[in-house]
Amino acid sequence: MDRIYLDYSATTPVDKRVLKAMEPYFSEEFGNSMSLHSFGQSAKLALENSRAVLAELINAKPNEIIFTSSATESNNTVLKGIALTKKSGHIIISSIEHPCIIESANWLEKQGFEITELPVDKFGMINVEDVKNAIKENTILVSVIHASNEIGTIQPIAEIGKICKEKGVLFHTDASQSFGKELIDVEKMNIDLLTASSHKIYGPKGVGLLFIKNGIRIEPLLHGGGQENGMRGSTVNIAGIVGFAKAAGICKKEMKKENKRLIALRKELIKGVLKIKNSYLNGHPEKRLANNANFSFDFIEGESLLMQLDMEAIACSTGSACSSFKLEPSHVLLATGIKPEQAHGSLRISLGRFTTKKDIKKVLKVLPKIVQKIRDISPYK
Amino acid sequence: MDRIYLDYSATTPVDKRVLKAMEPYFSEEFGNSMSLHSFGQSAKLALENSRAVLAELINAKPNEIIFTSSATESNNTVLKGIALTKKSGHIIISSIEHPCIIESANWLEKQGFEITELPVDKFGMINVEDVKNAIKENTILVSVIHASNEIGTIQPIAEIGKICKEKGVLFHTDASQSFGKELIDVEKMNIDLLTASSHKIYGPKGVGLLFIKNGIRIEPLLHGGGQENGMRGSTVNIAGIVGFAKAAGICKKEMKKENKRLIALRKELIKGVLKIKNSYLNGHPEKRLANNANFSFDFIEGESLLMQLDMEAIACSTGSACSSFKLEPSHVLLATGIKPEQAHGSLRISLGRFTTKKDIKKVLKVLPKIVQKIRDISPYK
Repeated sequence: MDRIYLDYSATTPVDKRVLKAMEPYFSEEFGNSMSLHSFGQSAKLALENSRAVLAELINAKPNEIIFTSSATESNNTVLKGIALTKKSGHIIISSIEHPCIIESANWLEKQGFEITELPVDKFGMINVEDVKNAIKENTILVSVIHASNEIGTIQPIAEIGKICKEKGVLFHTDASQSFGKELIDVEKMNIDLLTASSHKIYGPKGVGLLFIKNGIRIEPLLHGGGQENGMRGSTVNIAGIVGFAKAAGICKKEMKKENKRLIALRKELIKGVLKIKNSYLNGHPEKRLANNANFSFDFIEGESLLMQLDMEAIACSTGSACSSFKLEPSHVLLATGIKPEQAHGSLRISLGRFTTKKDIKKVLKVLPKIVQKIRDISPYK
Repeated sequence: MDRIYLDYSATTPVDKRVLKAMEPYFSEEFGNSMSLHSFGQSAKLALENSRAVLAELINAKPNEIIFTSSATESNNTVLKGIALTKKSGHIIISSIEHPCIIESANWLEKQGFEITELPVDKFGMINVEDVKNAIKENTILVSVIHASNEIGTIQPIAEIGKICKEKGVLFHTDASQSFGKELIDVEKMNIDLLTASSHKIYGPKGVGLLFIKNGIRIEPLLHGGGQENGMRGSTVNIAGIVGFAKAAGICKKEMKKENKRLIALRKELIKGVLKIKNSYLNGHPEKRLANNANFSFDFIEGESLLMQLDMEAIACSTGSACSSFKLEPSHVLLATGIKPEQAHGSLRISLGRFTTKKDIKKVLKVLPKIVQKIRDISPYK
């Protein structure tokens, strides 16, 4: 039985074209980009070419991009780096950030920084007025996720950026889920810092980037040998970075067509799933990532749903992969105001490049039966 | 002209056997190890198998190994993690540590921690009595590099470990250059924390590990989604980790034979190079990594040497790759007491798995002529 993967928001397979681009950099052009000899200089050249490609995708300058090992590292670098540079102050985040932002903020709170978590509406949307009102004299950073990894809701980033600019406060967005999928222009959107990740866009795991607008001072998270303009020590992962750039290039080229295709598939999926009694769509009906669908089912445990689907060779998720092992309901769903028992009964189906009509058909055939089966034995109904 | 790579201490090519082991994990078994479905569970299984292989190589328990993105990240995690857990205190490092240890220590000094740098003798060797004498009431950590990345000197790690154990102080060693090349037993050697890197042993770049002995509390550097037992957030780089484990397995199997082969090649190299007038071997004559040779030449700029060798398609280094772009003399060589002008005239030739007799012969044919040529036009002679 062919397995159907519908968890593209957790991670994606490396596109064969990406792997092909990476291959020479493992065993042939493997030099250390800091070495002065020809092996090193080849690596350096590939590094700078990759940086230029990735910068272009968000209308940044190449020297505004530093490579990291992941979105988590980029996000930790921003929050802690800004905080440790400023020494004290107030940081605003949303209540639906990724755990790495929330945990970094919690840690900073213990170090004496002041943290505000902005609420969201029932669609998971931030009110820009709330951002405006939350900014204080001592606010040093606003960090808002561009598109939710769980419910796909896309925030009004440009409006938030504008407010931050007017108030003279740094604005960071975690674009892990939107980079390569939605148009981003850091200049037009007044973004000062931006996080992106390779493995969400068919590039390899272990590579991320951080856009830092020229002129912004930030304490590095990894002190070391002066790589990345002194902003991030560590031997540069050249094969990974080349893969990331290749992946981004493909996304740029195919974005418009691919989003259209995904939206059509998702429409079919949502229409079909909502035929199940007592089922709901989480997140915003329109302002959401093309590949994301997130549902709640009454009288259901998401984990049971997931396991039953897995037995039918369909891979989905209850919320973010990062919190799969916790048995607590999703903080994102709770922030949208739904009840804990509904949050427990949630299912994220995230589509991607290799999702077909046939896959969606299979889900729509299997899912209603599974829901019924679980409900039949449920003590909650 | 075939290029000759003699900069294996800077980085190594990925062994073809390693790349083959990694391949399925890019596009087929690409799941997120935190996902509950079959894709995730395959990744989780590969992750735990890799952890077991790497733990065994240093006689650690699998749950004492966390994966990081590099030795730099591991080293930053140790110094900052221990410091931030203990809140205040005194840290001892050696004067020949890698820049990422020194820079982390410098940063901690600015935060109010007390740092002691231990001296080394003319061979780059630490005196264990100095360690004993440096430990104070408030010492929270001793961190000493196992084998120097520049001059190859291997420190008396077991003796230092014993002293630290007696004094009740945590002991960390940066084993980036020795892991997979020298026998390491964390239990026998009383090592509490150990850093290792994949790309120094024919594994991919972008992967490192940190051994943390059970019972030691340390603040994570990357806060996030609970991966690596809450010790390191970030989606696990599964292809990279599988590659690291495969690379380590090969090293374990071939270590004895390979070291013998390298020592024979190096002996030939050192004998030949020291025939050049006013040339010296840096580091310890015997207690050094099998693959490392480091020379100084009077009246020579290392950079010129390197460039001329590169034109002959031979890739070497002046010191560590991480400081190639600084024009300051090596802090490691200066710590051994040689004069700045001699440190400037240094050349590191580091051998590896693919180095042949023919390569050494070529170096011995070319190098004396180049040295003579540079000296002929040198203003220093």
